[in-house]
Amino acid sequence: MERHAFAADDSRRTQRRLARDGIVSPEMARVAEREGLQAQLVRDEVARGRLVIPANLHHAALDPMGIGLRARVKINANIGSSPTTSSLDEEVEKLALSQRWGADTVMDLSTGKRIPETRRAILDVATVPIGTVPIYEALERVKRPEDLTAELLLEVIAEQAEQGVDYMTIHAGVRLEHLALCRHRVTGIVSRGGGLLARWMVHHERENPLYERFEEVLAVCARHDVTISLGDGLRPGSIADASDAAQFAELDTLGELVQRCWDADVQCMVEGPGHVPLHQLQENVERQQRVCHEAPFYTLGPLVTDVAPGYDHITSAIGAAVVGWHGTSMLCYVTPKEHLGLPDAEDVKQGLIAYRIAAHAADLARGGAHGARAARWDRELSQARFDFDWRRQFALAVDPDTAQAMHDETLADDYFKTAEFCSMCGPKYCPMHNFRDVDWERLERLGARRPVGAD
Amino acid sequence: MERHAFAADDSRRTQRRLARDGIVSPEMARVAEREGLQAQLVRDEVARGRLVIPANLHHAALDPMGIGLRARVKINANIGSSPTTSSLDEEVEKLALSQRWGADTVMDLSTGKRIPETRRAILDVATVPIGTVPIYEALERVKRPEDLTAELLLEVIAEQAEQGVDYMTIHAGVRLEHLALCRHRVTGIVSRGGGLLARWMVHHERENPLYERFEEVLAVCARHDVTISLGDGLRPGSIADASDAAQFAELDTLGELVQRCWDADVQCMVEGPGHVPLHQLQENVERQQRVCHEAPFYTLGPLVTDVAPGYDHITSAIGAAVVGWHGTSMLCYVTPKEHLGLPDAEDVKQGLIAYRIAAHAADLARGGAHGARAARWDRELSQARFDFDWRRQFALAVDPDTAQAMHDETLADDYFKTAEFCSMCGPKYCPMHNFRDVDWERLERLGARRPVGAD
Repeated sequence: MERHAFAADDSRRTQRRLARDGIVSPEMARVAEREGLQAQLVRDEVARGRLVIPANLHHAALDPMGIGLRARVKINANIGSSPTTSSLDEEVEKLALSQRWGADTVMDLSTGKRIPETRRAILDVATVPIGTVPIYEALERVKRPEDLTAELLLEVIAEQAEQGVDYMTIHAGVRLEHLALCRHRVTGIVSRGGGLLARWMVHHERENPLYERFEEVLAVCARHDVTISLGDGLRPGSIADASDAAQFAELDTLGELVQRCWDADVQCMVEGPGHVPLHQLQENVERQQRVCHEAPFYTLGPLVTDVAPGYDHITSAIGAAVVGWHGTSMLCYVTPKEHLGLPDAEDVKQGLIAYRIAAHAADLARGGAHGARAARWDRELSQARFDFDWRRQFALAVDPDTAQAMHDETLADDYFKTAEFCSMCGPKYCPMHNFRDVDWERLERLGARRPVGAD
Repeated sequence: MERHAFAADDSRRTQRRLARDGIVSPEMARVAEREGLQAQLVRDEVARGRLVIPANLHHAALDPMGIGLRARVKINANIGSSPTTSSLDEEVEKLALSQRWGADTVMDLSTGKRIPETRRAILDVATVPIGTVPIYEALERVKRPEDLTAELLLEVIAEQAEQGVDYMTIHAGVRLEHLALCRHRVTGIVSRGGGLLARWMVHHERENPLYERFEEVLAVCARHDVTISLGDGLRPGSIADASDAAQFAELDTLGELVQRCWDADVQCMVEGPGHVPLHQLQENVERQQRVCHEAPFYTLGPLVTDVAPGYDHITSAIGAAVVGWHGTSMLCYVTPKEHLGLPDAEDVKQGLIAYRIAAHAADLARGGAHGARAARWDRELSQARFDFDWRRQFALAVDPDTAQAMHDETLADDYFKTAEFCSMCGPKYCPMHNFRDVDWERLERLGARRPVGAD
């Protein structure tokens, strides 16, 4: 796709503006192709704000994709160094891994040294949209959070936009008046951006600069078509804090900011929690969709319990599958290392696989065309399983190597690749083997006994 | 608890009979204590059939537990050798592991050699109820499935009951008239017992012997107070087959058998699927509860997709959490090795942890007294997290060693056990650290700005 030719022709129009002008951009056409949707539908959804195509004009390597209610459920992988751990090369390696394991977008959350260089290296090769949280880089340039300024934040946002970042988390919804609502929470504030801004606001006795200067943020984002991901700086960080007054007060502000993004023809999505028990998931999605006018919802998990550090890819894949089913458009993965340390390559892989499972389960449950396509994959794998076509079953698996390695642990010989059993049951007990040996003609001859429920 | 003294006094009465006679048995008292319930409530629930206490009179080592709607959600681990893999010692080791990682019950599904010896070794040390599927041992004694006889099945059931098995899966619901409904399924029959019986029935042109001789099965179970777990031999083994006519035809028979168990004063629960997409989970639970008169539901997963062999502890933990929330009483774990081979010790651990997460998330979502207790655990762990009390956070985790190992991968020194950050964010970015540094008194002095939502 000739993204740059297009950008050169019309470098001041966002996908949203183009859509509202009735134009199907190359990016929209590509999204339509990837999603199996009509191009006009993609355009209308982008115009309506229900679908975003994070596609910075300067991100040459990008293969455009869409995030929204009518698209497949997407997954995001967070990578990035921390001040204590990792390096540029390791992060580029994590990007490659993320793309290999099916991340639809990748956020570079680097903090510490060499942030722009790391991002540059990532953008040069990333075919998926790259997201950032600009306040992290801003903080690197000052000594303490209190030293941040609105000008510095805007400067970093502009530099990252010029570099080609496709979407940015902007925590403009954390307002001074919300902070008292967090004071007695069990886990206070657990968003890095939210924590920094809270400290800044109280110290300066001032409103959130990202809120106060939001029009300037919008101007930068409109210029380069950066999609804004409205950060939920006050998301609950524990089951005890889920669905509380602070979370929903911020959500109301986010709803207001969605409208301001749209008025400026800036694409936006809305970030969501966090830690939410199972029975509150559906209401969380529905509330976001209502308050934020159906702007795409992008949740972190949610984790359905706090008690399993080391396994939070699982605690959160449970929540992610359920919110995906109820209408969340993108699921930000959580790795096993969450709450404990910076994820390494293996953690990235484990997080992504858990989230591909969650997103696929959500697509299946939503039904429609994406659900039907998802169901075909399940059917093909199960058909291969029933046919004892082990090689095909492995090939169709989310992680073929792991599936084969687990099988081969006990029955490695090539002979067993066509065997009508595995080491779980062995041949005599294998139900699928026994089923295949049923004498169906004889059963039919027992015609007198008509099957129940078959008439 | 003096189980044997009690058994000697009154060896012919099941927990169900005792409850219906208004007696609170030592087993019921113990379950009440473990669940934080009134002993009378436990008795009434057992009498009503909504709670089972699998407690064979001959299982001396047992610490009685209860399975039912008013109890905490329970998890079961399947262990047992297969004809190709494992040994007696390995299986006893898996039992110890299962108890260590929180299994509430354990099924010994051994096939192949030395089945009774393996079970004896397990029963001697198991404090949790032990379940079996007697048809497996029966099949070991004949050459082919067709050689099974009703007499042999009854003989094995009686021997296992005398040995002390607390509950047995009896596939009495698979009827000849259901089989035609399975013929064109994607994965046919995936229950080992179901597959064997289907082959037998068609070969002999006879009804399921476990159905025909169910009164004799009941007599044995009543004598030793074996709880019957009504097997779902026709459970769907793929998303394509979920909630189909075969599954629900068998469920209707299971509902009839529940009543027959109760009439014979035999405790029973009902096994459920299998593979079920997210949006069909709730209706599956509600249908079982209605058709089976609220007898405890005991599901295998369910897996919400087929496409992730190697990760089916995750695909199924998603389904398990949701069905647990909607009223399933016990969740049979699925290990990462499902569909691929016999689980080893590490698979058992991974399966159990995924299921402790699912069961805990379900308890949380159900609310009530168990939910409140579950929420306290989340709160304590999150409080430790917010306090940067790393040691306490690890101690409270489902798997303390793994949590600590992951943390220590990057920040191993003892110094970091009280550090106000981890390698994910480092100190400057840590939101909880920044939150703790907020000057709350200053915020309060900004009194003019009243928090939104706080009035």
